[in-house]
Amino acid sequence: MKAMQVQDNWGTENIRAVDRPDPEPGPADVVIAIKAVSINPRDRIMCQGGYGRIGGTLPLVPLCDGAGEIVAKGAAVTGFEIGDLVCPTYSRTWLRGDYTKAASKGAHGGPLDGTAQEFMLVPAEAVVRAPRHLTVEEAATLPCAAVTSWNAIVAQGGTQPGDRVVLQGTGGVSLFALLFAKLAGAEVFITSSSDEKLARAKALGADHTINYRTTPDWHKAVLELTGGEGADHVVDIGGAATLDKSTAAVRPNGLISMIGVLGGAVTPDFGLGRVVTRNLRLQGVTVGSRDLFAAMARAMELHEIRPVLDENRFALDGLGAALDSLERGDHFGKIVGLV
Amino acid sequence: MKAMQVQDNWGTENIRAVDRPDPEPGPADVVIAIKAVSINPRDRIMCQGGYGRIGGTLPLVPLCDGAGEIVAKGAAVTGFEIGDLVCPTYSRTWLRGDYTKAASKGAHGGPLDGTAQEFMLVPAEAVVRAPRHLTVEEAATLPCAAVTSWNAIVAQGGTQPGDRVVLQGTGGVSLFALLFAKLAGAEVFITSSSDEKLARAKALGADHTINYRTTPDWHKAVLELTGGEGADHVVDIGGAATLDKSTAAVRPNGLISMIGVLGGAVTPDFGLGRVVTRNLRLQGVTVGSRDLFAAMARAMELHEIRPVLDENRFALDGLGAALDSLERGDHFGKIVGLV
Amino acid sequence: MKAMQVQDNWGTENIRAVDRPDPEPGPADVVIAIKAVSINPRDRIMCQGGYGRIGGTLPLVPLCDGAGEIVAKGAAVTGFEIGDLVCPTYSRTWLRGDYTKAASKGAHGGPLDGTAQEFMLVPAEAVVRAPRHLTVEEAATLPCAAVTSWNAIVAQGGTQPGDRVVLQGTGGVSLFALLFAKLAGAEVFITSSSDEKLARAKALGADHTINYRTTPDWHKAVLELTGGEGADHVVDIGGAATLDKSTAAVRPNGLISMIGVLGGAVTPDFGLGRVVTRNLRLQGVTVGSRDLFAAMARAMELHEIRPVLDENRFALDGLGAALDSLERGDHFGKIVGLV
Amino acid sequence: MKAMQVQDNWGTENIRAVDRPDPEPGPADVVIAIKAVSINPRDRIMCQGGYGRIGGTLPLVPLCDGAGEIVAKGAAVTGFEIGDLVCPTYSRTWLRGDYTKAASKGAHGGPLDGTAQEFMLVPAEAVVRAPRHLTVEEAATLPCAAVTSWNAIVAQGGTQPGDRVVLQGTGGVSLFALLFAKLAGAEVFITSSSDEKLARAKALGADHTINYRTTPDWHKAVLELTGGEGADHVVDIGGAATLDKSTAAVRPNGLISMIGVLGGAVTPDFGLGRVVTRNLRLQGVTVGSRDLFAAMARAMELHEIRPVLDENRFALDGLGAALDSLERGDHFGKIVGLV
Repeated sequence: MKAMQVQDNWGTENIRAVDRPDPEPGPADVVIAIKAVSINPRDRIMCQGGYGRIGGTLPLVPLCDGAGEIVAKGAAVTGFEIGDLVCPTYSRTWLRGDYTKAASKGAHGGPLDGTAQEFMLVPAEAVVRAPRHLTVEEAATLPCAAVTSWNAIVAQGGTQPGDRVVLQGTGGVSLFALLFAKLAGAEVFITSSSDEKLARAKALGADHTINYRTTPDWHKAVLELTGGEGADHVVDIGGAATLDKSTAAVRPNGLISMIGVLGGAVTPDFGLGRVVTRNLRLQGVTVGSRDLFAAMARAMELHEIRPVLDENRFALDGLGAALDSLERGDHFGKIVGLV
Repeated sequence: MKAMQVQDNWGTENIRAVDRPDPEPGPADVVIAIKAVSINPRDRIMCQGGYGRIGGTLPLVPLCDGAGEIVAKGAAVTGFEIGDLVCPTYSRTWLRGDYTKAASKGAHGGPLDGTAQEFMLVPAEAVVRAPRHLTVEEAATLPCAAVTSWNAIVAQGGTQPGDRVVLQGTGGVSLFALLFAKLAGAEVFITSSSDEKLARAKALGADHTINYRTTPDWHKAVLELTGGEGADHVVDIGGAATLDKSTAAVRPNGLISMIGVLGGAVTPDFGLGRVVTRNLRLQGVTVGSRDLFAAMARAMELHEIRPVLDENRFALDGLGAALDSLERGDHFGKIVGLV
Repeated sequence: MKAMQVQDNWGTENIRAVDRPDPEPGPADVVIAIKAVSINPRDRIMCQGGYGRIGGTLPLVPLCDGAGEIVAKGAAVTGFEIGDLVCPTYSRTWLRGDYTKAASKGAHGGPLDGTAQEFMLVPAEAVVRAPRHLTVEEAATLPCAAVTSWNAIVAQGGTQPGDRVVLQGTGGVSLFALLFAKLAGAEVFITSSSDEKLARAKALGADHTINYRTTPDWHKAVLELTGGEGADHVVDIGGAATLDKSTAAVRPNGLISMIGVLGGAVTPDFGLGRVVTRNLRLQGVTVGSRDLFAAMARAMELHEIRPVLDENRFALDGLGAALDSLERGDHFGKIVGLV
Repeated sequence: MKAMQVQDNWGTENIRAVDRPDPEPGPADVVIAIKAVSINPRDRIMCQGGYGRIGGTLPLVPLCDGAGEIVAKGAAVTGFEIGDLVCPTYSRTWLRGDYTKAASKGAHGGPLDGTAQEFMLVPAEAVVRAPRHLTVEEAATLPCAAVTSWNAIVAQGGTQPGDRVVLQGTGGVSLFALLFAKLAGAEVFITSSSDEKLARAKALGADHTINYRTTPDWHKAVLELTGGEGADHVVDIGGAATLDKSTAAVRPNGLISMIGVLGGAVTPDFGLGRVVTRNLRLQGVTVGSRDLFAAMARAMELHEIRPVLDENRFALDGLGAALDSLERGDHFGKIVGLV
């Protein structure tokens, strides 16, 4: 079978198509014929050997987002049938409960091989059935981006009806967060540098839109729109580039979910003092467990929530270029690749 | 009566003794004859006009820690008698529940007048009876320093028996945190630059001591002492100076309570990425409510917990110098002033 | 002014219209010209001297649900203007945080005088502005019934999108719970003895309806509809009459909110063992605080949620008969009285 | 090897010693040479076919409490060595997180075979190392009784320093709860019908003792000892026999942990109304997960907590009689059997 792998050296430029033997399931495993994958900033960093090399050793099959059909299963597997449309969960060693060191060691696309291959061998316990109303392309976006947003908004975030939630940008995590925050009854504020993207976010349910190019002090806009109270929850994507304003946009005792460090992870120029004096909570979000994925899938199916997909598709051979394109940020919705 | 106040300009050098009229209680008020006060880094910053001038306007009577006897009370006051040994709570507008903007506006020693005066007028609902076994000097240390530690360890921290808690230095908050963490059954790790202070901390119950002068990579010592797992909870006092190591010393999904920014509040050189990838929670701690104070007082009385006092006392006239002396850090335990 | 009061002896038959002096506001009070009230089973029990006489002493002005305009306010009142449409909160001594003994002592309609009077004197801190989109009749249903449901579904219940919530009957609390559970993204199961009422509940958003007359084992229907898993949360209204089946309808580790004891409070024939062996949580719900009310009002306004009102109105003089009519259960939605 | 099993019919009188083949470990299993076991009321009910026959099918090897040495392990097992003193966890399908239906299916001593056998085959992931300071007899009491108490007091109960905790009787769960509640800094009230047992409980740390034979209204004693406030937490063991008084002894918004139904599970004569009007939480406690067991073991080791053992031992052949003896209640501490 065909697989993409980072080889010889870290770097998206070192991703190559290779031929690997077709996997055979052990007694408790399934084999998924991956039909679609999706990409995240995390995947690019992992391919570059980032995160302190937690991505393991080379060669590495990248990506953690993907979906496909079960084409083989072990004798001990119950609950799945050949032909089921499923996703691998983010980490095969994170089935329930909170994040642990063990969970990090079972993550797909680093350190373990990921979804960028034609056939993926996964323990059945680390597989989640896709919501019935989704296409395989839509389902492919769930394991990392959607689960991360669900964790930030629902599981760790505990969003309640009427909560004011601020989302930064219109990337994959933010758009899922928009859908889930509206589902939970929140009032959503979203920022972007593009009025066109903001209009699309509004069509998806955003209550307030702020163009941070024309309104660089977006935190002041949030304060104004909330009568000076501030938001209950800011989902921070930018890290060093945004955290200072996030601490000003949130109310006393409010929550900042820290999901990404797109703006750079080092030397943030933000007032730690505000975290102390305003009793803020900064909560890191590291995807989520299989059980959390399953709960999200049930809610999505119940309400027929559909992921927002960027209109462009890439072919698996173009994986390196696709990952690099994330930096440009000219997409809207999840970028999907076809296997 | 005599009162100390910052006048004309912000700065500890502008603290002057003045004569103010004796206060008369309204129907729901009490008057406390303050006998002892205590000082915190927060008080110094407030006198300097720090925290973005949330300290209000000049003149300002500093300090939030203090204790004394009730010498007068309004007709509607129940539950207190003349002669009761009491403390004012940190903020007279924070009686229950979480921190709010309103709570910040009622804080003693900035923006409202504080404990550095002979007679303090306080609404009876903002007063807590001192634990019976304490002297007035000991009780004087409770409203800010002890309550902050209780909030970090017990209320927000939810420390459970067997939890591994790391404390930084042997300042007032850390020593209260030591007492409370042991009371809650934790395993306590404490750092200091002084072996002599570490020996005293050990005598107070610390399980592990780390001299961060001889072991600058104290986070690695914590990891080693915990079999590589990391601590459950780090109470961070140093801010920019310590946060990077705190994020490395704590286990995945662990808690960092952020109490002080002694090491400077701007431009911390710490990896935000670790907060994200290890699912950490950074929780600001801003003292606590009256109800929280009362719960702490009950627990202290039940177990006859005594605050650790530095052996030196200062007179109220020396308040400015006493505040400045906090920077040197050559005390052990709370510094108490006599009124 | 006119007021209704239980006098001489407990009992709805002893409710009389009387003339009382018009109230004058103290410095921190407002006077509300009550225009509409609403009734709850709790009000009837209170008028009968139930709940172990926590209703205080006679005479007593009944009811806790009501709304009207501010017609006078004390000099120290900020945040309200003459003419504002407001509701008194359930208990004037329960502003924030969890339920306490003190909270029970400030409840309107027992032990303190309630809303069944033309002008109600209330501390301004115990008043909540009505959502702007509501009529005064709609707003009159919020303080007790709506807040209780909000507490059960949102605050204590922590309902998340996709949660399966079972509601019993179509009384006031259940219909508010239906609206709030849908707002929070839940899948709602509702029971009734009337197909016509079930049809109306479905129109309001219920996902599944069960006629407990034709399907007395409604818990088995819940299990079947959930693939044998059971519901996440049952809002129990019937007490002794329903609790046994509620413990069977909920999943292991699930939640049963206990709101009413309509079926009788003594000698329930239910297996306590199931609570133990299935790790269930039974959570009493006693209305909620002012802050909880305010959060609910904000969410209702944001989403323009309207209370469901029964089509009939009663006049204040008919209060006793209206309370007695609750037993018959032939209403749908909150019963509103005009003042 | 020798094993005890309930055979032919449910009932402790049908427990027989039989010879079974020595177990061989699969790749992920260990074999424990059980040296000591302990008994719980739950084990007796299970042998009698109680709990709605969740005990599975006959024959059944009883008991879930036990300890011994690892004598064999599969090739894939890491983290354990031959000779390690270990306990099987309560349920081999409950490793982390909350209780689920799946967890109930993996419980030892019903429905799966339990500890009453010379050699027990267990997946290594369902094994916890015994605290180092314990004898095998002491360790044998941990999996069910100790873990249940830990869950009630620490994990679900969230006991904080100063909390007032009421324990009923001096059975196995109550004595563990006493040790853990003191470890967490609580003020402990304990009841018994025997002054001699109360004296022993006091020696173990209980703050207040109440003889419920001479003071049948023990709930009033609790109210008096708490200045009328009531306890924060009652650990209810008696079920129908005690629950009414438990709801009166606890403060508004307090917690009742429901652990046993020793007094009978059917038709409790208690006022459900008090649960509603006082906002109480009744929380069932069903043992706990492996991770919870491991956290408890770490805390016990840190503080060198030793289980309280009854002075008598039984031999495995006397298992049926030992289980029946639990009814008499003349023991103090856990009853241990030697294998």
